[in-house]
Amino acid sequence: MTAFLHDDFLLTTDTARRLYHEVAKHQPIYDYHCHLPPDQIAVDRQFANLTQIWLAGDHYKWRALRTAGVNEDLITGSTTTDYEKFLAYCRIVPSLVRNPLHHWSHLELRRFFGIDLLINEANAPKIWELANAKLATKAFSARGILASSKVAVVCTTDDPADSLEHHVAIAQAGIKTRVYPTYRADKLMAVGAPAVFNAWCDQLAARAGIDIADLAGLLEALDRRHAFFHSLGGRLSDHGLENLPDADCTEAEAAAIFVQTRAGRAATPEQAAKWIWHVMVYLGRLDAKRGWTKQLHLGALRNNNSRLLKRLGADAGVDSIGDFPQARALSRYLDTLDRENALPKVVLYNLNPADNYVFAAMIGNFQDGSIAGKIQFGSGWWFLDQKEGMEWQINALSALGLLSRFVGMLTDSRSFLSYPRHEYFRRILCKLLGEDVAAGLIPDDEAALQKLVRDICHDNAVAYFGLEFARDW
Amino acid sequence: MTAFLHDDFLLTTDTARRLYHEVAKHQPIYDYHCHLPPDQIAVDRQFANLTQIWLAGDHYKWRALRTAGVNEDLITGSTTTDYEKFLAYCRIVPSLVRNPLHHWSHLELRRFFGIDLLINEANAPKIWELANAKLATKAFSARGILASSKVAVVCTTDDPADSLEHHVAIAQAGIKTRVYPTYRADKLMAVGAPAVFNAWCDQLAARAGIDIADLAGLLEALDRRHAFFHSLGGRLSDHGLENLPDADCTEAEAAAIFVQTRAGRAATPEQAAKWIWHVMVYLGRLDAKRGWTKQLHLGALRNNNSRLLKRLGADAGVDSIGDFPQARALSRYLDTLDRENALPKVVLYNLNPADNYVFAAMIGNFQDGSIAGKIQFGSGWWFLDQKEGMEWQINALSALGLLSRFVGMLTDSRSFLSYPRHEYFRRILCKLLGEDVAAGLIPDDEAALQKLVRDICHDNAVAYFGLEFARDW
Amino acid sequence: MTAFLHDDFLLTTDTARRLYHEVAKHQPIYDYHCHLPPDQIAVDRQFANLTQIWLAGDHYKWRALRTAGVNEDLITGSTTTDYEKFLAYCRIVPSLVRNPLHHWSHLELRRFFGIDLLINEANAPKIWELANAKLATKAFSARGILASSKVAVVCTTDDPADSLEHHVAIAQAGIKTRVYPTYRADKLMAVGAPAVFNAWCDQLAARAGIDIADLAGLLEALDRRHAFFHSLGGRLSDHGLENLPDADCTEAEAAAIFVQTRAGRAATPEQAAKWIWHVMVYLGRLDAKRGWTKQLHLGALRNNNSRLLKRLGADAGVDSIGDFPQARALSRYLDTLDRENALPKVVLYNLNPADNYVFAAMIGNFQDGSIAGKIQFGSGWWFLDQKEGMEWQINALSALGLLSRFVGMLTDSRSFLSYPRHEYFRRILCKLLGEDVAAGLIPDDEAALQKLVRDICHDNAVAYFGLEFARDW
Repeated sequence: MTAFLHDDFLLTTDTARRLYHEVAKHQPIYDYHCHLPPDQIAVDRQFANLTQIWLAGDHYKWRALRTAGVNEDLITGSTTTDYEKFLAYCRIVPSLVRNPLHHWSHLELRRFFGIDLLINEANAPKIWELANAKLATKAFSARGILASSKVAVVCTTDDPADSLEHHVAIAQAGIKTRVYPTYRADKLMAVGAPAVFNAWCDQLAARAGIDIADLAGLLEALDRRHAFFHSLGGRLSDHGLENLPDADCTEAEAAAIFVQTRAGRAATPEQAAKWIWHVMVYLGRLDAKRGWTKQLHLGALRNNNSRLLKRLGADAGVDSIGDFPQARALSRYLDTLDRENALPKVVLYNLNPADNYVFAAMIGNFQDGSIAGKIQFGSGWWFLDQKEGMEWQINALSALGLLSRFVGMLTDSRSFLSYPRHEYFRRILCKLLGEDVAAGLIPDDEAALQKLVRDICHDNAVAYFGLEFARDW
Repeated sequence: MTAFLHDDFLLTTDTARRLYHEVAKHQPIYDYHCHLPPDQIAVDRQFANLTQIWLAGDHYKWRALRTAGVNEDLITGSTTTDYEKFLAYCRIVPSLVRNPLHHWSHLELRRFFGIDLLINEANAPKIWELANAKLATKAFSARGILASSKVAVVCTTDDPADSLEHHVAIAQAGIKTRVYPTYRADKLMAVGAPAVFNAWCDQLAARAGIDIADLAGLLEALDRRHAFFHSLGGRLSDHGLENLPDADCTEAEAAAIFVQTRAGRAATPEQAAKWIWHVMVYLGRLDAKRGWTKQLHLGALRNNNSRLLKRLGADAGVDSIGDFPQARALSRYLDTLDRENALPKVVLYNLNPADNYVFAAMIGNFQDGSIAGKIQFGSGWWFLDQKEGMEWQINALSALGLLSRFVGMLTDSRSFLSYPRHEYFRRILCKLLGEDVAAGLIPDDEAALQKLVRDICHDNAVAYFGLEFARDW
Repeated sequence: MTAFLHDDFLLTTDTARRLYHEVAKHQPIYDYHCHLPPDQIAVDRQFANLTQIWLAGDHYKWRALRTAGVNEDLITGSTTTDYEKFLAYCRIVPSLVRNPLHHWSHLELRRFFGIDLLINEANAPKIWELANAKLATKAFSARGILASSKVAVVCTTDDPADSLEHHVAIAQAGIKTRVYPTYRADKLMAVGAPAVFNAWCDQLAARAGIDIADLAGLLEALDRRHAFFHSLGGRLSDHGLENLPDADCTEAEAAAIFVQTRAGRAATPEQAAKWIWHVMVYLGRLDAKRGWTKQLHLGALRNNNSRLLKRLGADAGVDSIGDFPQARALSRYLDTLDRENALPKVVLYNLNPADNYVFAAMIGNFQDGSIAGKIQFGSGWWFLDQKEGMEWQINALSALGLLSRFVGMLTDSRSFLSYPRHEYFRRILCKLLGEDVAAGLIPDDEAALQKLVRDICHDNAVAYFGLEFARDW
């Protein structure tokens, strides 16, 4: 009988077991992209119960609950108690076998709370009691969890129009985990929705202390906020697009679209494509100018279910994977910046695994020898941060690029309990390396393998992103 | 020396062997989608020889024969004898290694006829003799095969304009296998071919006992036939589309396209897209109204070879896999129905394995908690109902959805001998589960695993589709 | 401790080891598609040092160097010495683990030079010395390497306007390796670049001894050159397209596009699509007429980096994988030729692995029984000629077509040292077969397996392409 998620799960060879237990698992976590709420770190939130930290806001779990036939009221409703919601989830966990949630949920209880029980209806009361008792302690505050998880760096996701007051507060608090803002200007793209765009523009103007009267004013405001993020230690930007637009745009066209949108007339899809192209090129220049890394999250088809979007807003668990053409426009975008010596470090994240090879091949076109692994094919993301998704990404990157230069895993999560995904990634990495060694496909050189694992789990990201952080974990 | 297709083939672990031999293989077959000819069940056809039941109509085998360099006359020609055709196939079977036909062909002879010989030219005469002797017996009639294969349910594929007389006859015959019609309105989409559309419309009108003078009449006729299928126990509809059209259509536009087509003027591609959208939404409402399940078979590129299409008609073995965009229009279709509370249970079948993840992610957007696994990602289909195709579908569904709620395998076949594909599927399912247990990735809980296997092989489909059938197999 | 690339690497079963060592590795190499420079064979080039034969022109290695952070001057620059370039590469080889270059580079040194050292900075001087000593000997001339690698056939890639003087010289030299030209008319497609097109047209006219005054003249010239290639033993054509155009074109339209281009006015994209369609159909007829095989290399997105394109020209290592729609237009192209009985043998090469199944399914539509495996799904190509790429292609072909009729591996290379890729392919083939035998999925029939391996490694290509060559290797 094999124990469920035993100490060596996924570690199929001696090499893998050694690499994981002696090297990988000891590396601090360098979480260069996530959606943790900075305010909760700033106030060092204490969680009222397991539902609050484990289920609320976790739309992966919501989807599973809906699929299992659970009523929305027991998932996101306001008429049910936290315990009822917790119980509803425990009831369906046994039906999640082979879904990554089944592993993650158990690992979350084991690694953070030391609860080794199978999650099911029978064990639910005991789990609730044990977990809630721990959650009441200081070690389980937002900061406590970050510290015990050895999270060296957290980069949150933030709007240029955000005050970043929580980041300022966190920095002043002097906690060991360093928390940085990431510059992500979603609403800048919303020229098809003038109300959204204009409200955001006004807020941006106020933050930047500048009057946004024309396109030049907008670009100047974006630059000032970029500089402010920089002053707080931020070194990353991020974008979430279906794909890069296959469009060109002149300065005059962009200016006209700006004027029109400010006047309340929605841009056409063609105009929106032009606009996005234009501002994406501009933001690329900003990143290059300050030595930042630009992240591109491509391929999500969002807000598919308008009923749940209306009820719950965005991030309701109704996003999925698109099948958009990616290659040509992405190539043109990177080339446009490269031609003017304004191509920053770039991490390309792909959500459709069918496009893994397109992405893994694309990065090779724009490596320029200036920085090892300058253009990265990012880690398996969202629907892909599970066993086969991670394996595919690692294998595609290995076959077409340099795995040894990979900056590795990130959580992309909204939850303080998602660090076992790093464990998962590290086990899979060690598994793949170990199997290749056993097959004679990689030299059996322990020192080189240990360095490789350390690099991918931690050291490459340190060198690549250039963020300040504490070294003594 | 390992025996070819030995008792435990594909069963790589003790768990797999136990689950398959003790549970999976004993489940009745619930074949909720196929293309069996109901007239042959109605008359309880007896097959003249092995070619008639094994090769005639099996366009998988035709493709293999053509690829192996066999002349069309020996495949579908009228100038060659059944024995010559049989011999031509036996000759090429050894060259089919690694193709699923190599396994299926051997399993078909073993499971139905008890013939353990390797299929090749030398063994052909003996196979012919043995098989034909059995085919002459009552146990090998159409109904005999269904009974000995423990086929509890068969859902055929039928036109709304069909009389369903054979289904009526089968129901009256009171055989143990329950046979139901599936509502599939292919010609309803043919507004680009007015001759086809209008002849079908007239037939539909006659069957429905209604004058189809306008769009409203057509929709009413479709509803009446839907009700008639329902009265015979039918609870499924089906569609075969390249993809959902990315179009909108008003009632007035649809009405105009109808009038134009009835007047003999072919719809433009844009009009056809609008039309298909309109009637697909309408048919979705019908399915929702009567609690049916809608099947969408997406992604086939049909009738590629016009020479063979002309010679043999459709289903000549010249269909293949398309690379159409699927995600956005499919999302919009499901959302359109969901918004008006008219989303029926839906099974999405994908023919291009590159889109597996798009489909597996899509279903999660529209699970509403009303029925477990309400939106299904259907089993590997057509070119995908072989080992790696099934594994990919099972793995994609597992990683992104709930395998435990999967309604499982179907044959999608025109042949009475295709039930070993269920065996194939069940072995693969047990293989994957067993390997995960051995790796510590699934709890080693025998009762839970047995229930999981029973559910996926049989019980989930029973609960999901809600068809009447005999329980005492 | 497992030795790196030991004698049995990739050979995971007894069957695999036996098949590889007793059969596969002894087969001569039938390299029916590559980019070797015929002039170097004609003059029997002797290589000055390892950089010249191992790194110069190998844009796979250039990409790896750039990714590893090496400056372009040390890759393709004129200011650095060959030794400096060599050293730069040796330094980064350890960082290539899991990339096929890591295997190829070591195999190239082992198989050709007998150098068993790990490639790294420390071993670089020794490797340089040992390899260069051998390169100075006659056995390491271009022809010497072909002979010692048992290369029976080489098909280079040539322009119809090329004089083929080097092929004439090679034929007259009477070397054992037979070298044939392949007809590839890239510039014929360049109606969007009249300067390129017209210069090429003039050259073609001169070679063909014909005045190209109109479309008819051009087509006549193409036919004459086709006949000349044929007279030198050539039996293959080749095309490199993103995808087949989804266009129709009348004779009159093509004639008008020709006139316009000759007058120096660039064709629009729509015109170019029509033109390409028209000449592709014409060239298909030529191939059919003379019993040739047409190769279609589809899916590359070329020249992505305009900076490096400008610095280095084409083949700078800045091509990658596109995500173009392929199925519909490809189907129409093959059908158009089939309808007029002018479909030649065709090998379809796919660069995007997401499309493997589309291609593997497509070939089945146009098998006509005249020649076994008439339409081929070609070997993993470019970014795909590594372990998982080859496995995917072999598995897709196996599942949807007939592996037994596969014409097997080719190098597609510009380097005289790339024959270990055939070794790689053969090991993978034997691995897959051996694993299936061990699992009971293929009959354990040694004679049949040996024939299968011989066929795929050599005999199928011999029968299929029909090139003259020496049999006594």
